Amino acid sequence: MTKHGQPTLGAVAAEAGVSLATVSKVLNDRVDVSAGTRARVRRLLDAHGYVPTVHRNARGRWLVSLVLPALDSPYALEILRGVTASPLDVVVCSLSDGAGPTSWTDQVLGSGRAGALVVVPELTDPERTRLAGARTPCVVIDPTGPLDGVLPSVGATNRAGGLAATRHLLDLGHRRIAVIGGPRQVLCSRARIEGYRAALESRGLAVDPDLVRPGDFHHAGGFAQTQALLRLPDPPTAVFAGSDEQALGVVDAARHAGLRVPDDLSVVGFDDLPVARWSSPPLTTVRQPLAEMGRTAAEMLLALLEGEQLARRPVELATSLCVRSSTAPPSDGGVGQVRARVAVA
Amino acid sequence: MTKHGQPTLGAVAAEAGVSLATVSKVLNDRVDVSAGTRARVRRLLDAHGYVPTVHRNARGRWLVSLVLPALDSPYALEILRGVTASPLDVVVCSLSDGAGPTSWTDQVLGSGRAGALVVVPELTDPERTRLAGARTPCVVIDPTGPLDGVLPSVGATNRAGGLAATRHLLDLGHRRIAVIGGPRQVLCSRARIEGYRAALESRGLAVDPDLVRPGDFHHAGGFAQTQALLRLPDPPTAVFAGSDEQALGVVDAARHAGLRVPDDLSVVGFDDLPVARWSSPPLTTVRQPLAEMGRTAAEMLLALLEGEQLARRPVELATSLCVRSSTAPPSDGGVGQVRARVAVA
Repeated sequence: MTKHGQPTLGAVAAEAGVSLATVSKVLNDRVDVSAGTRARVRRLLDAHGYVPTVHRNARGRWLVSLVLPALDSPYALEILRGVTASPLDVVVCSLSDGAGPTSWTDQVLGSGRAGALVVVPELTDPERTRLAGARTPCVVIDPTGPLDGVLPSVGATNRAGGLAATRHLLDLGHRRIAVIGGPRQVLCSRARIEGYRAALESRGLAVDPDLVRPGDFHHAGGFAQTQALLRLPDPPTAVFAGSDEQALGVVDAARHAGLRVPDDLSVVGFDDLPVARWSSPPLTTVRQPLAEMGRTAAEMLLALLEGEQLARRPVELATSLCVRSSTAPPSDGGVGQVRARVAVA
Repeated sequence: MTKHGQPTLGAVAAEAGVSLATVSKVLNDRVDVSAGTRARVRRLLDAHGYVPTVHRNARGRWLVSLVLPALDSPYALEILRGVTASPLDVVVCSLSDGAGPTSWTDQVLGSGRAGALVVVPELTDPERTRLAGARTPCVVIDPTGPLDGVLPSVGATNRAGGLAATRHLLDLGHRRIAVIGGPRQVLCSRARIEGYRAALESRGLAVDPDLVRPGDFHHAGGFAQTQALLRLPDPPTAVFAGSDEQALGVVDAARHAGLRVPDDLSVVGFDDLPVARWSSPPLTTVRQPLAEMGRTAAEMLLALLEGEQLARRPVELATSLCVRSSTAPPSDGGVGQVRARVAVA
């Protein structure tokens, strides 16, 4: 048995009544093996649960998996860009591919690849335990919950980002500031909202629970929550939108309500995706270095593959505020004017 | 020698003075080989130019390359989404990774992978010849030039898309319609502009060369060309922007000039990326089924890998017009009003 608990190729060769060289040829898809022999050897390999260790390509580059959530957001593209800039060969798997009865953890760990980079919207306890217990090294990007040192991870300073976004709005003179987070339990969203609370409290302002909303990190969530916010008796004059996609939903909902951004409503995003610059108006947003997070995680995985030890504490890369054109001081009429416009629209 | 003109593993084993089983262990990164032996065998494998044929993963899925242009556009993400929905394992390579002295064709063909899906901004004649002459099957997605039957390809009905976009603007009453294409020689861009010309000519309208502009398919190109168009003595009342990213640049340039979309300027995109729906206003655009193009190309590559023959003529998937909120009839004042607003801004 090998280190992976697999049959040796010698044992398979003996059982099939062929040479080791023949088994090797079958594994390498060589043509100089008869169809019958090929089928017999493949059957035995399958029966013994043989997993070929396809760890490196022809140029000695490690072959690893990158597990991404649904490929429906530029967020995934930014991370991919960073990962592919590393000296790893990366097979992309999306959770939306419909894994069927096999869990994605089993798929990734059973693929015979050297390691895995994991970006998933919710890492469950069983998934975390499965990854942590596997021999295949894994690094988690933008973790959704505390990893308690069981897996190395790379994230961003989300709390500091939330703090900077909210302070920017406070400095412009806003006092009725709403925040739309991501799904309730997601770590990065909770940290951003913590930063929002800390910014308000440091100025002696109370947090109004009506202005703190969960979202989905997508356009739809930003749109729906903004419609609800604008129906409040005392609507906000600014929204910290939690993600750029959500910020685009806020801008869209404002437009539907007849409000101008930033004149009537200031909006701050989070991520600094390319689309933040393309938006009209270009979005003020908190930049998290997604591509750099991807590259850093890939370098950490490479180090693990080369036998280095890594500290298991989370790595956090710095966020920074990018001020563009979606934020401005509240208009003279302030909240009242927003309310009046909403009432008219 | 094997079919690939490579050394047999037996010859490498003999030269290294070890058994074939030991060579096999080295190739599989097994730990039960001494460091010295491992290094000697690896050196010999390298010296003989050995390319392991890493064609399938542990589950029998083919391992192929996907060559994408710079990963800076949601366009690439859409294609990737379609490709990963196929039963292929896909290693993503980006042309922006800095291939160095080795061309990307050599990298892809020398990786030992089973096949390649290729999306590149410009496929040069030498690259096309190199791919067509290789044993590794390749399928081109959204080809940038005619492939003359040397490689199978999947594209979209770009001419029909350009026709539909321009007819939509004509039907709204526009007569001064500009078009911004992609880089001058790119096939899909030329086809879209052909459709634009055909639509105008079928209504007996002459094509004004001032209104036909090359772009770069990015925000910057749309922005710069729109600024130039708005400086014309007789500016357009509508722009067919050639791509969604370029359309966002047109919208941004209009905003900078104090023009409202669609009231003062109608804008039609091309692609129907998710960002087209998130934009304010949501973009009227020509949908090309990028994900479906990716999936179709993957299925064609799979067929080639399984030994099927494919027709070498280009496959074209249908485009369709999505009417949203960035197009409207020209305002009463028409061109004159646009000119007046531009003069004021």
